Amino acid sequence: MKYSQFFIPTLREAPGDAVVASHKLMLRSGMIRRLANGLFAYLPLGLRSLRKLERIIREEMDAAGALEVKPTVVVPGELWKESGRWDTMGQALLRVKNRLNGDFVVSPTAEEALTSLLRDDLSSYKQLPLNLYQINTKYRDEVRPRYGVMRGREFIMKDAYSFHTDDASLDETYQEMGRAYRRIFRRAGLSVIPVRADSGAMGGSGSEEFMVESGIGDNTLILCRACAYAANVEKAACKPDFTALSPAAAKEAAASLPPPGRIDTPDVKSIADLCAFLKTDSNNFIKTLVYRADNIEADGLPAGGGTSSGFFAVLIRGDLEVNETKLAALLRASEVNLAEDTDVERLTGAPVGFAGPLGLKGLTIVADETVSAMTGAVTGALARDAHYQNVAFGRDFTPDIVADIRTVTAGDRCPICGGELYEKKGNELGHIFKLGYKYTKSMKVSFLDADGKSRTPLMGCYGIGLDRTLAAVIEEHHDQAGIIWPVSLAPFEALVVPVKYEGAAGEAADKLYAELARLGVDTLLDDRRERAGVKFNDADLTGIPFRVVIGDKNLASRPPLVELKRRGQGEARLVGLAEAAAVIAREIRTELAELDGAGGRG
Amino acid sequence: MKYSQFFIPTLREAPGDAVVASHKLMLRSGMIRRLANGLFAYLPLGLRSLRKLERIIREEMDAAGALEVKPTVVVPGELWKESGRWDTMGQALLRVKNRLNGDFVVSPTAEEALTSLLRDDLSSYKQLPLNLYQINTKYRDEVRPRYGVMRGREFIMKDAYSFHTDDASLDETYQEMGRAYRRIFRRAGLSVIPVRADSGAMGGSGSEEFMVESGIGDNTLILCRACAYAANVEKAACKPDFTALSPAAAKEAAASLPPPGRIDTPDVKSIADLCAFLKTDSNNFIKTLVYRADNIEADGLPAGGGTSSGFFAVLIRGDLEVNETKLAALLRASEVNLAEDTDVERLTGAPVGFAGPLGLKGLTIVADETVSAMTGAVTGALARDAHYQNVAFGRDFTPDIVADIRTVTAGDRCPICGGELYEKKGNELGHIFKLGYKYTKSMKVSFLDADGKSRTPLMGCYGIGLDRTLAAVIEEHHDQAGIIWPVSLAPFEALVVPVKYEGAAGEAADKLYAELARLGVDTLLDDRRERAGVKFNDADLTGIPFRVVIGDKNLASRPPLVELKRRGQGEARLVGLAEAAAVIAREIRTELAELDGAGGRG
Repeated sequence: MKYSQFFIPTLREAPGDAVVASHKLMLRSGMIRRLANGLFAYLPLGLRSLRKLERIIREEMDAAGALEVKPTVVVPGELWKESGRWDTMGQALLRVKNRLNGDFVVSPTAEEALTSLLRDDLSSYKQLPLNLYQINTKYRDEVRPRYGVMRGREFIMKDAYSFHTDDASLDETYQEMGRAYRRIFRRAGLSVIPVRADSGAMGGSGSEEFMVESGIGDNTLILCRACAYAANVEKAACKPDFTALSPAAAKEAAASLPPPGRIDTPDVKSIADLCAFLKTDSNNFIKTLVYRADNIEADGLPAGGGTSSGFFAVLIRGDLEVNETKLAALLRASEVNLAEDTDVERLTGAPVGFAGPLGLKGLTIVADETVSAMTGAVTGALARDAHYQNVAFGRDFTPDIVADIRTVTAGDRCPICGGELYEKKGNELGHIFKLGYKYTKSMKVSFLDADGKSRTPLMGCYGIGLDRTLAAVIEEHHDQAGIIWPVSLAPFEALVVPVKYEGAAGEAADKLYAELARLGVDTLLDDRRERAGVKFNDADLTGIPFRVVIGDKNLASRPPLVELKRRGQGEARLVGLAEAAAVIAREIRTELAELDGAGGRG
Repeated sequence: MKYSQFFIPTLREAPGDAVVASHKLMLRSGMIRRLANGLFAYLPLGLRSLRKLERIIREEMDAAGALEVKPTVVVPGELWKESGRWDTMGQALLRVKNRLNGDFVVSPTAEEALTSLLRDDLSSYKQLPLNLYQINTKYRDEVRPRYGVMRGREFIMKDAYSFHTDDASLDETYQEMGRAYRRIFRRAGLSVIPVRADSGAMGGSGSEEFMVESGIGDNTLILCRACAYAANVEKAACKPDFTALSPAAAKEAAASLPPPGRIDTPDVKSIADLCAFLKTDSNNFIKTLVYRADNIEADGLPAGGGTSSGFFAVLIRGDLEVNETKLAALLRASEVNLAEDTDVERLTGAPVGFAGPLGLKGLTIVADETVSAMTGAVTGALARDAHYQNVAFGRDFTPDIVADIRTVTAGDRCPICGGELYEKKGNELGHIFKLGYKYTKSMKVSFLDADGKSRTPLMGCYGIGLDRTLAAVIEEHHDQAGIIWPVSLAPFEALVVPVKYEGAAGEAADKLYAELARLGVDTLLDDRRERAGVKFNDADLTGIPFRVVIGDKNLASRPPLVELKRRGQGEARLVGLAEAAAVIAREIRTELAELDGAGGRG
């Protein structure tokens, strides 16, 4: 491609709202342009990279046995009502009325569409397993789109949905997808952190997120300094720093403890105040919080069918925080929120700050595991300015549910090896997830097994955001001057820059360009009448990996020489004009092989 | 690909609402499934063909110098308000409100988005010409979607938009697109009829539609039996069957005619009644119709800016019909409709049926060219049950505008050669069109020319509907048993069918499959445990071009033989197992070369 016939409107400065490197560089290098808040168009240069990423993903999905399909982008709202997500997705779901007043959705994801597609054609276990994917436009009506295509409203996602007769088959595809994702990100030149999004217990992992470290990440990752443990804070576990007891054992352990005693605690507003007042540590308090949970699933049925909302009293050790994601998962609710003050007063009979488990009626009590080790603790007394002390789990109260609902933080211990945990911010690029029966049950999918019995298939889903993956590559590969593309995703692999496109340099440039094309190297020839400085700046900005500069002086050498430079690597070197194309083709092959990984597939 | 690892849910019967061959066969062969009225998902088999068509289009567009971009599917309503089409597109435009109550559109076409994209980055004439295209999802909220993907609500379109400094440059790209379209349809194996969508005058053609003949087509084509003239009836012209006169010449010609005389015409309801009553022919009457025109452009400005509506009196010879598309184009209105009866009465002072040009005040009078040859004619007299006779154009009335606004029909004469015209129904697959300044002016795009003066670029647009092109290929290439794919678009090029996939036949099938893969032939291996009849029926239905049947008897020959059959062509022939792959690869090459056209590009 000749530069003069292409369209690369580079910018000296990025607009003020572009604050992260990828957003700035994609705008400045002429890869993308903003159409509206959260809506970006790809210009020719950006689209070339996007298409290369698309090709890598398609190759790896096909190699993993997945089959590509293409549902529509606009889908009937009816399907979302069947799954229950019409009600639970909230405002992120872009809803449309057509001319006949029918409800439609601009798809943010396609569990419904794919499940519905399959259900009419699935009859026999012989058709399973089946893994269907698409690479298609999605829309999510983000409250606050930002960071360019990293968090846009419209985006391209590769999403796959697999269907299975049994757990073993689901697990096999799930693992294969995990391997495919590692290959995809490796070929894209990305250092991803595969993060378990489950509780961290050994085996039976049902959810894994592929994260990149990012200062602007909207996920907090918990990582171990000693082993490979990595989890999303929403799900991270840690090694217990307490000894959990059963209610019976706890009751026995508290035999010698005096009974709970009520104490007056006037003017005490916070746990810190209470610690000071009672001269004790916060880990001796049982915090009692009232939560409202919405869209609670009942009996394996999804929200939408027999769902309900409810209030719960949630107990946790005073030095810890409740992890709302864990709590919602435990309660199978679509979301949980702290109850309004008026609800707390009505339900506990006391102002906010004085709730406690003793004498609490009409609320299901959920306790974090840490509470099961507490004896001689302090709790609210369900009355203004009053607390109980000498409270013991098992003896004075027994929660309805005891589970891990704490938020793990830096300094906690690794659940695998006991090493010290630390935190990082991360951005999620991909996610693989065992859905189980969630959609196949609610949308009534079935097949006949080998015995002729009707059964419900299991399902898995596997997504990758293409735009943000591309942005993440730029975040990881750039310098002050611009992008430094890995060859696998570079819009062009080589850039031929005659200092002046005329005379001998012009001829040499044309010849080298033709030779590179013959060797299958994707090449851009800068044939513009611009100053060399302008050409070099644009070359650095657009980040094309191999730059060949053709100048009269080097051409006059015998044999004639050209300057070859790998973007992002030290100095240019002189290479014979005659060998340049072969050298570049060889180095591209080497880099691609490195990205593919020495070990090949698997 | 092995059949057992693929997903081809064939159906014995198509659903009752599928009435045309392509719709039935796409459903029956497992290419597509219906998600809702007008919304179809592509299953793996269908998507393979769609992707091949996409590739052909991309290759030809790239070869023609167009650059691929990707705007979003959901675009800001603001852009459509700028162009004026927010108001003129009506209900076909799918409008969405986002969570912030902003107006958005699910794009049916992208003039606005592409014009807006370019305007911020266009500065110099040096950047032009530029031809930007996308292959992307579109949505049009059709009143009555039908015929499967032939007229769906969501569809895939290749749409290109070119920008130019001058007419010559626009014409060059327009002609190049016309050639690219001919190549695309030829490679797809389609017989398209390129139809001029302009007035039929020689030279300066600014619009061409690519039609396929179709009994279910929603366009009427006017074709000449003697020459290559082909036009959409909306725009078709014909050789005049009258001698047009200027008003002055007409006045002179009518010198000896008595003055208009009023005649009573009680109980006369129609032109036929009037003919009988006056004992004359309908071509001696001047029909006067009152039209309402909406969104009239003023002075090159688009609708939306300074637009207006108005009423017009339209005169035409009594045996002809007014062509509303021509009338709207003449008046530069977005649409024209016959006025309501109450408006006709208010404006003409008479009931419907008695309008006429004599004494008519306050309405612009538009006459078809045929009227300019009429002398001694009959018209309404602007009063109930009254007409004038001896009315002469030029003497008794002078229209404000005289132009060709007649509807051409079968039997009229070709405007080029005078041959007899006939009619066909057709479906439009593609359209190339010179837009001129319509969007660049309304959306205020400019560039600096070589003299540093600010100018507005000219624009062209070029669309192809991919889904309906694929359906049209099936309409043209099928028989009772199923699809007969041209190799260029076949989901697989070859199908290997072992009668039983076991023993020697199974081994031979595996070997042949591997050999075909080595030769780059896209092959499906039917490894199912199904009866041969089931396999053969599915083979015919899915229409894979080369079918190889491997049976024990032929295998036992020395040398071993297999049965090779080109779908859609006579009988199977016996071919040596050892040669089969090479024979197939060669025949595929031959067929592809034929589709590419012996003459190559251009």
